[in-house]
Amino acid sequence: MQTCYIFNCPMNYRLRQQKLMSALGENHLDAMVITHGANIRYLCGFTGSAGVLVACSPRWVFYTDGRYRDQAREQVKGPRVVITKGSSLAAVAVELARRRRVPIGIEADHLTVSARSVLAGLLTKRVSLSETSGLVERQRMIKEPEEIERIRAAVAAGSNLFSTALKAIQPGRSETEVAAEMEYTARSAGAEGMSFDTIVAAGPRSALPHGVASAAAIPRHGFVLMDFGVILAGYCSDMSRTVHVGKPDSTMRAMYQAVREAQQAGIEAVRPGVEAGQVDQAARRVLKAASLARYFTHSTGHGVGLEVHEPPRVARGATDVLQPGMVITVEPGVYLPHQAGVRIEDMVLVTEHGGEALTPAPKDLVVL
Amino acid sequence: MQTCYIFNCPMNYRLRQQKLMSALGENHLDAMVITHGANIRYLCGFTGSAGVLVACSPRWVFYTDGRYRDQAREQVKGPRVVITKGSSLAAVAVELARRRRVPIGIEADHLTVSARSVLAGLLTKRVSLSETSGLVERQRMIKEPEEIERIRAAVAAGSNLFSTALKAIQPGRSETEVAAEMEYTARSAGAEGMSFDTIVAAGPRSALPHGVASAAAIPRHGFVLMDFGVILAGYCSDMSRTVHVGKPDSTMRAMYQAVREAQQAGIEAVRPGVEAGQVDQAARRVLKAASLARYFTHSTGHGVGLEVHEPPRVARGATDVLQPGMVITVEPGVYLPHQAGVRIEDMVLVTEHGGEALTPAPKDLVVL
Repeated sequence: MQTCYIFNCPMNYRLRQQKLMSALGENHLDAMVITHGANIRYLCGFTGSAGVLVACSPRWVFYTDGRYRDQAREQVKGPRVVITKGSSLAAVAVELARRRRVPIGIEADHLTVSARSVLAGLLTKRVSLSETSGLVERQRMIKEPEEIERIRAAVAAGSNLFSTALKAIQPGRSETEVAAEMEYTARSAGAEGMSFDTIVAAGPRSALPHGVASAAAIPRHGFVLMDFGVILAGYCSDMSRTVHVGKPDSTMRAMYQAVREAQQAGIEAVRPGVEAGQVDQAARRVLKAASLARYFTHSTGHGVGLEVHEPPRVARGATDVLQPGMVITVEPGVYLPHQAGVRIEDMVLVTEHGGEALTPAPKDLVVL
Repeated sequence: MQTCYIFNCPMNYRLRQQKLMSALGENHLDAMVITHGANIRYLCGFTGSAGVLVACSPRWVFYTDGRYRDQAREQVKGPRVVITKGSSLAAVAVELARRRRVPIGIEADHLTVSARSVLAGLLTKRVSLSETSGLVERQRMIKEPEEIERIRAAVAAGSNLFSTALKAIQPGRSETEVAAEMEYTARSAGAEGMSFDTIVAAGPRSALPHGVASAAAIPRHGFVLMDFGVILAGYCSDMSRTVHVGKPDSTMRAMYQAVREAQQAGIEAVRPGVEAGQVDQAARRVLKAASLARYFTHSTGHGVGLEVHEPPRVARGATDVLQPGMVITVEPGVYLPHQAGVRIEDMVLVTEHGGEALTPAPKDLVVL
């Protein structure tokens, strides 16, 4: 069965473009070269993997090559589309070199050193490049209603994979077989792909915070940690659940319960006006009380949207202030080296009054 | 059923490291900062997604964070492993700033402008950064026997997905459902993941050279173009096949046949000593004779290995000389806008005497 997701509300690309032009003005930039795929998609709707968007007045321009001719003409909303024969970046530089005013913004967090050299080498001395960071990403942090609708659908589709996993997990089966079943469910439900390589880490491998699914067999006894997400209509989901095969002893139960409570504390700390670091602190405090904080070796979460990892960071000392419309993960974990690991992760929408945990799958310890 | 791939021959990391040190010497570099994941994996075996490798004498150093502590200690062959609290790149800069000699190579094609600024900002004036391009990639172009063994296994596993697709393709089913079946076969066979988002493009969508699988239904009549690959033991496969649903008319048959012959001409042009551009030319010449060259809007191929796209490029005017041990794709295509598209792609190993097409799946037109 194929679920067909139809999203009727189109994105307001014009508004996004206007907002970026305002930001450029505030940063005393005449134009900006946008090379990061997710930012290009956000600003003009193009979903292909090669192209350069130039934000400039009077009209933006999108450069891509012949492979994307039809797709660009169909998808790009607003900018003029130029099909280049050679490198799109070189074509951009030739065009920018004609401009009278300066400077031009580049995305320093995404543009490579050599791409910058290509641009700089073709520009005249009048035109200088200015390194910007996060101009578009800061816009993207606050999700519009049309985006939240898509994110909810992605979260729902992603959450269904947990049911699939519960049926698939059996001692002796490999981690990749479980991942295969989960990904099949995702694709059959219409997902465009997975948000990242599905993590299924069983037994002592659950202690590897980023152990992707391997050929290792699920043992008769121990935790199985899963971290997974789907992409639907461009938007990512991201969740983690940990289950136990065989009867867990009291230490393992206590460890699970501590992570469960840390995650709940993190979710409860989400509200507009608090710094992202406070969410991290709330989760970490619970693990500290359980003497497990030193086994929590990563940050508590991150923003999710067109990319599975995007601002804001939800980490120790992170000062981004949570605002309604942000969507973040809350995902504390505890990893006892070579023994066992537990991580529980939901996506949380920052609302006017607090946080709404979007992920519907249950979180009490499942014993298989 | 889970096929378990055991590769007994370990990679010779020490030799790879020695070769890079020679290359650094030839380029008058004292050390090199390696940030690109595939290059890190190639040089020291680490498969995680965060870390920085510093090639320097007397002993290389690999920096990563707490999430990868166990994994780094288990996988990294040769370099000393340092677990950093904050940014690995900052730790690298602090370490390099202590060095007396200069300059330090960076990977200009991969390092972002802002990462370069972080490095440069922390270095003393004695130490300068030197932009390098493709130093490790040039080494990686020539595959070692242990790598070719893995590539053969990936190609065989990938090729099996074509059989799955032939069973899955039915009018009315969605492109993503076909992709789901293919990816399930891949995962069940032990693949670590797909080389890239599986392309299943049916009917007029086959005219989009890079149309990923969508919710669109397979029509009763028309081409279905598939481009897909699996990752096995770190190595990628990549292949394309195009089939026809319903009886093709003579124009479509002729178009398919032209691509088939162009691809064969490309494969036959592969041999040591020729420039990669000559392979492109051989394929393009056949399409020119069929008056279809202007619908062949991309290059003929690319290298494949740890990455699905890596040097050499097989494109118009490409001057890389083919050498035994290189593995490239040969994948001409013809795309009639809004109508129909055909692409046929195999992976080809450059041998001592010519080229060996690795992909076993048949290429005569399949009518479903």
